[in-house]
Amino acid sequence: MKLSEIADFLSLDYKGEDLEIKALNSLLRANFMELTYCDGEKNIKDIANTGAGAILIAKEYEHLVPKHTKVLISSNAHLHFAFLSKIFANSLISDVKEKKQQIAKSAKIMPNVYLGNNILIGENVIIMAGAYIGDNVEIGDDTIIHPNVVIYNDTKIGKKCHLLANCVIGSDGFGYAHNKNGEHYKIYHNGNVILEDFVEIGACTTIDRAVFDSTVIKKGTKIDNLVQVGHNCHIGENCIIVAQSGISGSSELGRNVIMGGQSATSGHLKIGNFATIAARGGVSKNLDGGKVYGGFPIMLQKDWLKLQAKIALKFKEK
Amino acid sequence: MKLSEIADFLSLDYKGEDLEIKALNSLLRANFMELTYCDGEKNIKDIANTGAGAILIAKEYEHLVPKHTKVLISSNAHLHFAFLSKIFANSLISDVKEKKQQIAKSAKIMPNVYLGNNILIGENVIIMAGAYIGDNVEIGDDTIIHPNVVIYNDTKIGKKCHLLANCVIGSDGFGYAHNKNGEHYKIYHNGNVILEDFVEIGACTTIDRAVFDSTVIKKGTKIDNLVQVGHNCHIGENCIIVAQSGISGSSELGRNVIMGGQSATSGHLKIGNFATIAARGGVSKNLDGGKVYGGFPIMLQKDWLKLQAKIALKFKEK
Amino acid sequence: MKLSEIADFLSLDYKGEDLEIKALNSLLRANFMELTYCDGEKNIKDIANTGAGAILIAKEYEHLVPKHTKVLISSNAHLHFAFLSKIFANSLISDVKEKKQQIAKSAKIMPNVYLGNNILIGENVIIMAGAYIGDNVEIGDDTIIHPNVVIYNDTKIGKKCHLLANCVIGSDGFGYAHNKNGEHYKIYHNGNVILEDFVEIGACTTIDRAVFDSTVIKKGTKIDNLVQVGHNCHIGENCIIVAQSGISGSSELGRNVIMGGQSATSGHLKIGNFATIAARGGVSKNLDGGKVYGGFPIMLQKDWLKLQAKIALKFKEK
Repeated sequence: MKLSEIADFLSLDYKGEDLEIKALNSLLRANFMELTYCDGEKNIKDIANTGAGAILIAKEYEHLVPKHTKVLISSNAHLHFAFLSKIFANSLISDVKEKKQQIAKSAKIMPNVYLGNNILIGENVIIMAGAYIGDNVEIGDDTIIHPNVVIYNDTKIGKKCHLLANCVIGSDGFGYAHNKNGEHYKIYHNGNVILEDFVEIGACTTIDRAVFDSTVIKKGTKIDNLVQVGHNCHIGENCIIVAQSGISGSSELGRNVIMGGQSATSGHLKIGNFATIAARGGVSKNLDGGKVYGGFPIMLQKDWLKLQAKIALKFKEK
Repeated sequence: MKLSEIADFLSLDYKGEDLEIKALNSLLRANFMELTYCDGEKNIKDIANTGAGAILIAKEYEHLVPKHTKVLISSNAHLHFAFLSKIFANSLISDVKEKKQQIAKSAKIMPNVYLGNNILIGENVIIMAGAYIGDNVEIGDDTIIHPNVVIYNDTKIGKKCHLLANCVIGSDGFGYAHNKNGEHYKIYHNGNVILEDFVEIGACTTIDRAVFDSTVIKKGTKIDNLVQVGHNCHIGENCIIVAQSGISGSSELGRNVIMGGQSATSGHLKIGNFATIAARGGVSKNLDGGKVYGGFPIMLQKDWLKLQAKIALKFKEK
Repeated sequence: MKLSEIADFLSLDYKGEDLEIKALNSLLRANFMELTYCDGEKNIKDIANTGAGAILIAKEYEHLVPKHTKVLISSNAHLHFAFLSKIFANSLISDVKEKKQQIAKSAKIMPNVYLGNNILIGENVIIMAGAYIGDNVEIGDDTIIHPNVVIYNDTKIGKKCHLLANCVIGSDGFGYAHNKNGEHYKIYHNGNVILEDFVEIGACTTIDRAVFDSTVIKKGTKIDNLVQVGHNCHIGENCIIVAQSGISGSSELGRNVIMGGQSATSGHLKIGNFATIAARGGVSKNLDGGKVYGGFPIMLQKDWLKLQAKIALKFKEK
């Protein structure tokens, strides 16, 4: 789509040289054929470093844009980006007549399974009844996809993984832009999910795809039932995420992090290697590795235990 | 079913004029062909205003019943109502030989989809593999039903909605009556779920149908993954309900209410327009609109933050 | 598998008399043809009482093993047990050519249902579209399995149960052994799930199978949507488990226990008959029956309410 057409579509002024835009991408990842956006304070520092061909940006930040990046001035860059995300979204279902499917002979596909186009199924993979395998999905050797699991388009799954019944991998993240009337516009997510080798995903657990790039669950990480992993999270190697935990978008866990049952994190934060979050811990800031945390607001678990004891004692006295 | 037959079925005395009962309904919604019940204090004020043809009620409240309503005296009206709810329940599966299905030519139905009787599927609707569409379901134009979604009988879905994988719309609510031995009897739910236009429902989210009447999610509301919405809730326009939140039965949210991740409400309460509940907030009382709340018990979020800081400080000193 | 072969497979020394090992089992349940393990302090007291044919155990506890039990010395008995659990795991899918299926004529099986081998389906059972019924499953009379429900191998379901859409019964529990590098090895679960009569399971609820033996939900218990029940839990008769609650592995609830919404328990604890846990209550110790508890850490609900009021008052003053 030409940049001039994009400007027309968004009813924005654009008078510079034209440009073919192939895709949308984030500030730091966009290349010269891609359009990006900046919607405010938190990303300003990255503007100067963008390699994007074009950017949607507020008038006040225009002077920060590097010369190689063409500018579309927008009073609501996030909303305009949402409109474009729909245009650039990959189609949910491919319309090809003959699907390209590379399925190992040793793989076992049970009845009532849906297999998309351009998929790659490794040796000894088992895909159990009722599972949905979207387009461009890759599944490594010896992985087992349990009944009624849904794997959306573009997901890459390693070897020797177990995906338990009714889990959902690669659904769109929960991202919206808003207009002045408080109406929400869906950000279509064109990233994907990558599950590395030896990953296990519990029943009815949901892993959202990235806006751009990938939501990544690294090698050996085990996730229990009914867990939510938001878009663009990076979960390190050998983590243990216990049932009903929630990890908000763009959070990063190091390796061997343990999240107790019903624990949670806010978005955009980092938890260091070998940190443990006790059950119900609510993480709202970055945490160093190697320690045990608990409570909400989060603190060292030993401090939380002491604090609760003191509170109980203090108010019992009176 | 005749009122005299109902009395026999429940082993209750009834000697008045007979009456054909077509359905069960709530005190204020029941008409002259319907039977209602009153199970105690909280609904007493509504007895005088019922238009019901008949009522199940304790002896002590009999004098409050209007003259046009026939009375079945019951020492456990709720339990007797539960027994009747099974009799009057709509069948889960229709036994018609030729299903009536009005499906737009532009709609796309993927394989392994179950389509019920008397359904209406709008233009450009996509129903992805493994989805279940019960009887009497209506789906508006441009709506996408993702893989393995279950839509129970009688659900009405607007235009341009997205229902993500493995969500469940219209399952029976969690309502039971109890006998003296502490055994629970299911209340069969004959209401439905209505999703208005532009509604989005996350993966593995569950929306329960109403006992009578409807559970309603209004226009433009977006619900994340693994959220529970109880029976008879009314969620206003353009609300944002983040992952793993739970909204208990019969609660009402105004427009543009935000519920943070893992937040929750008790049943039968109201949250005003433009209120925000922070992550983990536990709402146990009615809340005015336009403010930000947090904590459990719920308070203003700024007060909760101050309180936590003070507590930490106070007990650190010692 | 011969005990000597097991020793070889695990690269452990074994020089005693050989023995055919038919299965793995827990310390107290293993018989003379079964192998068990002991991984530390908490089970030491049970070693003397084991009837196991052989045991994986640390050198330091060897002297506690009864004479009838052969010993494999292991520096990481849990890990070695995990390796064996894979060898002894039941196969997920049977490869029989002609399945043995005893299905009552009055049962109704909807389209796109998968039925395993050696199953027993009672009178008037309804299995709705997209459901998965694994091998060796038994379903009692009048039970209804809703759409896209997944029932894993070996599950036993009583009469007049309701399993709502997309719930998962009998998935492997969340159990892993760990090596020195912090890598996790799956414990394959060979136990099962038993749902007694009149049990109801909500939409997207997950009930894990036992490692050995059974996860049991007793007669008349009702479980709401999005609830997690861990492996080897025993839930008593007529309990009420409200939405989004989590019951960790090996916990025992007495009869008529109520767990409020988003409440939870740690593993290996007991809650007495007729106890009520208020919404959000976090149970981390054994609780007597007949009382109402709340808060986290758990206390009497009335104390929690008082405590919250006192805290609010105390810090408001300043």
